[in-house]
Amino acid sequence: MGAPMAVNLAKRNPVLGFDSNESTRRRMQAEMQVVEHLTDVLSAQIILTMLPNTDSCLSAYLGDKGLLSEAKKDQLFIDCSTIDPTASRRISSECEKCNVKFIDAPVSGGTPGAKAATLTFMAGGSIEALQQAEAILLQMGRRVFHVGPVGSGGAAKLCNNLMASINLVGTSEVMGLGMRLGLKPEVLLRVLNLSSGMNWATESYCPIEGIVDGLPSSDNFEDGFACELMLKDINLAQKVAHEANAPLMLGSITQSLYRLLCERGYSRKDSAIVSAFFTSGKFTSLGGPNSSAGK
Amino acid sequence: MGAPMAVNLAKRNPVLGFDSNESTRRRMQAEMQVVEHLTDVLSAQIILTMLPNTDSCLSAYLGDKGLLSEAKKDQLFIDCSTIDPTASRRISSECEKCNVKFIDAPVSGGTPGAKAATLTFMAGGSIEALQQAEAILLQMGRRVFHVGPVGSGGAAKLCNNLMASINLVGTSEVMGLGMRLGLKPEVLLRVLNLSSGMNWATESYCPIEGIVDGLPSSDNFEDGFACELMLKDINLAQKVAHEANAPLMLGSITQSLYRLLCERGYSRKDSAIVSAFFTSGKFTSLGGPNSSAGK
Amino acid sequence: MGAPMAVNLAKRNPVLGFDSNESTRRRMQAEMQVVEHLTDVLSAQIILTMLPNTDSCLSAYLGDKGLLSEAKKDQLFIDCSTIDPTASRRISSECEKCNVKFIDAPVSGGTPGAKAATLTFMAGGSIEALQQAEAILLQMGRRVFHVGPVGSGGAAKLCNNLMASINLVGTSEVMGLGMRLGLKPEVLLRVLNLSSGMNWATESYCPIEGIVDGLPSSDNFEDGFACELMLKDINLAQKVAHEANAPLMLGSITQSLYRLLCERGYSRKDSAIVSAFFTSGKFTSLGGPNSSAGK
Amino acid sequence: MGAPMAVNLAKRNPVLGFDSNESTRRRMQAEMQVVEHLTDVLSAQIILTMLPNTDSCLSAYLGDKGLLSEAKKDQLFIDCSTIDPTASRRISSECEKCNVKFIDAPVSGGTPGAKAATLTFMAGGSIEALQQAEAILLQMGRRVFHVGPVGSGGAAKLCNNLMASINLVGTSEVMGLGMRLGLKPEVLLRVLNLSSGMNWATESYCPIEGIVDGLPSSDNFEDGFACELMLKDINLAQKVAHEANAPLMLGSITQSLYRLLCERGYSRKDSAIVSAFFTSGKFTSLGGPNSSAGK
Repeated sequence: MGAPMAVNLAKRNPVLGFDSNESTRRRMQAEMQVVEHLTDVLSAQIILTMLPNTDSCLSAYLGDKGLLSEAKKDQLFIDCSTIDPTASRRISSECEKCNVKFIDAPVSGGTPGAKAATLTFMAGGSIEALQQAEAILLQMGRRVFHVGPVGSGGAAKLCNNLMASINLVGTSEVMGLGMRLGLKPEVLLRVLNLSSGMNWATESYCPIEGIVDGLPSSDNFEDGFACELMLKDINLAQKVAHEANAPLMLGSITQSLYRLLCERGYSRKDSAIVSAFFTSGKFTSLGGPNSSAGK
Repeated sequence: MGAPMAVNLAKRNPVLGFDSNESTRRRMQAEMQVVEHLTDVLSAQIILTMLPNTDSCLSAYLGDKGLLSEAKKDQLFIDCSTIDPTASRRISSECEKCNVKFIDAPVSGGTPGAKAATLTFMAGGSIEALQQAEAILLQMGRRVFHVGPVGSGGAAKLCNNLMASINLVGTSEVMGLGMRLGLKPEVLLRVLNLSSGMNWATESYCPIEGIVDGLPSSDNFEDGFACELMLKDINLAQKVAHEANAPLMLGSITQSLYRLLCERGYSRKDSAIVSAFFTSGKFTSLGGPNSSAGK
Repeated sequence: MGAPMAVNLAKRNPVLGFDSNESTRRRMQAEMQVVEHLTDVLSAQIILTMLPNTDSCLSAYLGDKGLLSEAKKDQLFIDCSTIDPTASRRISSECEKCNVKFIDAPVSGGTPGAKAATLTFMAGGSIEALQQAEAILLQMGRRVFHVGPVGSGGAAKLCNNLMASINLVGTSEVMGLGMRLGLKPEVLLRVLNLSSGMNWATESYCPIEGIVDGLPSSDNFEDGFACELMLKDINLAQKVAHEANAPLMLGSITQSLYRLLCERGYSRKDSAIVSAFFTSGKFTSLGGPNSSAGK
Repeated sequence: MGAPMAVNLAKRNPVLGFDSNESTRRRMQAEMQVVEHLTDVLSAQIILTMLPNTDSCLSAYLGDKGLLSEAKKDQLFIDCSTIDPTASRRISSECEKCNVKFIDAPVSGGTPGAKAATLTFMAGGSIEALQQAEAILLQMGRRVFHVGPVGSGGAAKLCNNLMASINLVGTSEVMGLGMRLGLKPEVLLRVLNLSSGMNWATESYCPIEGIVDGLPSSDNFEDGFACELMLKDINLAQKVAHEANAPLMLGSITQSLYRLLCERGYSRKDSAIVSAFFTSGKFTSLGGPNSSAGK
């Protein structure tokens, strides 16, 4: 996701791009100046990072030849990765020692949002740093929430995605019930969406196969928010819930369902495919017999 | 709820009111003509029923001195009770034998909606019967969904309320997590409500104590949709799920939580009080120690 | 199951057999005297019934040409079916009006136990009736629990089978975890079985494929206690829990898993097949992709 | 727990005791020789460690003045702590570099078992190291399971304790159901214990208040296996399940219940107190109204 975000920035600003993968770097060269080493980006005043997980983030910032090894006073670091908020706070406190600013600003909106510059940022950090960051972020997205101190951005993102998974699973099981009771799925969806059953999934991400055109659920669950990303976020939410001793009842069940999906070959499919546990269709072998065994 | 609905009807039509409870009948006399026996209402062409549960409904229609014992050809019966859809279909098939029409049209909107004539009806029955009923129903509400054949109205209502309970519990646990992580609840609520975590509870029924003015959750959980009514609907949903062999994962957990609430003295409180399992506040003794024992 | 039980009784007593299915009746003729009509059995002093569900039981006892239509004073009726305890109490109170005795005495041990006369009976009824019944029951089984008044037998059976399903699912998920962590399943099973993780499934009904010889889990999950029977009992347990307002958290999850299994073609397989949700093996397509879709 | 284990060892061997807490060290002096610094124990050939959590273990072994900083070739280290198996493997690989042996051997049996030398050890490591350790371990316990390579001991312990929590919660909910149905708890317990519902809790750790004498559940839930220890183990199990992508359905629900218990003041109570969610008694305010609010 980092590449399309950088592309949007490069439309209005000089950008130094870096990716640890060489072929990605080569592709980026068409759109911006690309540098050879991570620390080369430190000639800029504002540095954005977008990394796949907590460990890669810790090592990019705190590693031997990491960003903080050569950071200059008053630089602003904006981390858009979705990582453990505890790690964000750890990076932030190292930043303070180096006299540089840090905010965590994970995004929602996925790769399509990154391309279209319609992302939402949930940002945690000092008001001063956030004000400085906002104009930059709005070149890549449409909305910036100031959520609180560093770590809050990630915390809010995890909370939101946990709720999104509950929306998907809840809508799937309720639609599955209604369809078994003989209700037409498009009618039930409309009823839910105008009543107290309404949620993001009934409104704009119907998980049931073939009901709403233009969604991953009508396109073989391709090109959406992958199960493995959903699971990554639920797992992080469960981890911070553990540390905060927060009971997660519905969220723990959604976690198990996404673990099953990822284990059994669906990790790249859109997270709405969780509906296959509750309905019939092309993917019902989810939780179903294989042709020879189940007789 | 039947009384305020009848009052709204009586504003524009001659109405014959009946209630098995004498003092309710007496109160209704100020607003409409009241009759002494159930079957006295059969002098009308259209008969509405609003009863507390499946058994009272079956006996009002099919009992010894029930409505169908003296029904006249072509009368239209509209049952607004929330009952087992199988029972609705049984009543409907008896109606057919008597050559009378029947629709099931349970409502959402609660007593406030009944008073303000802003109810939503989820109606099941023949198109002909539904068309005849619609004008009447719109005198008591704002919206009528034609969901399908008889029984569909109830099925859709149960599906919706099951999803509503998942919205409440999910939002409670996610808000509880966020608050333990140090997020301000009003900020997290706003983030959820503008992202994929959005649902009816984040939008208009925040279950967390004291966040949004004017809701039961800011008024000691008084005067909302009572836990016992929520549990009644979830239990009915679970019953039809059993008959349809539909897996309910999140819904089964919400069912257990509402059973606990009802058993331990909260049956009349608003259903949003389920948040007390996940947060701290005036009602945290829910799931908490009593003063002497927990030391 | 009724037939092998009758065969065991016929070894020591004159027995009049009846089954509503004619071909079953014909097979029974080799072993005992068979009668043509249900009420023909009423020439005996003690009448045992073994029926597949609550409705067939209610109609056998209370139907138009049912047993109680011609019952004679002081006869003893023993119902070994697993049915709703409320129905047992209803039958019992009709029996009282007819001056006949009734006990509910559902069994555990399955068809193998019925053949081998090693069943366990969980019996509810008056002490006098139970004492009279005990000698008869012990011709078909090895143990009779006197659980309480009529209905208690069924209640105890449902509680036990609900716990059995929790034993199976819990053991499956824990073994699945251990195996993913690299533990040898037979070693982990031994550890569990000698520690606080011990339960009926670790001790004598290992649900994991291929670990313990001689069990359905090592024989393609054939010939055990079928998923559909397990689900029938869990559904009944959930129904009485609803009436008693008892929270069932783990039991509700097991219910959903067995609903999935039955819906997707595994209803006749042994209930231990629930392990396929949590482990890898011949049946992992349970919860897994089909060959073409999951890529 | 380390102290009583050391006392048992000291009965037959010269022991050098160490505890980071000075007052514990002073108490140990009555029973054995006590040393001032952690590394002083390295004059022994075999070193046992018993520490409260993963971090304290990592720092005792790998810290600046940790055990491995001065370890001598061929020493044997036995870690009896319950920690993350990944950490055990990390310690083990550092041990290999120092040419010393390491096994992880967490225990079950609690403080009473430690005092009575009746612990069970679940040991992971090379066969050679395990053989050397066994005689020592049997001075403190009754049984040593050789589970597999380093890390297996901890993995098996976590699996077992997760299953134990499922046994406790499952038995609680099933007993709660039975009692609401009018069954006598002691009768139901006996039925379960002789049928497929049997498990460690029905057999020897009945969680329902006041049924079985001599258990924590009959002694105000004092002096057993504390909720906070159960939760620590379930949390670790959930963590390794996350890394292994293992679905935990029942275990996730038990985790939430223990989080609730710990948060609301019951962390020191015996883990059987989870039954208070499902039954009535002295502790029913668990999940119940406080005197003033619930009206």
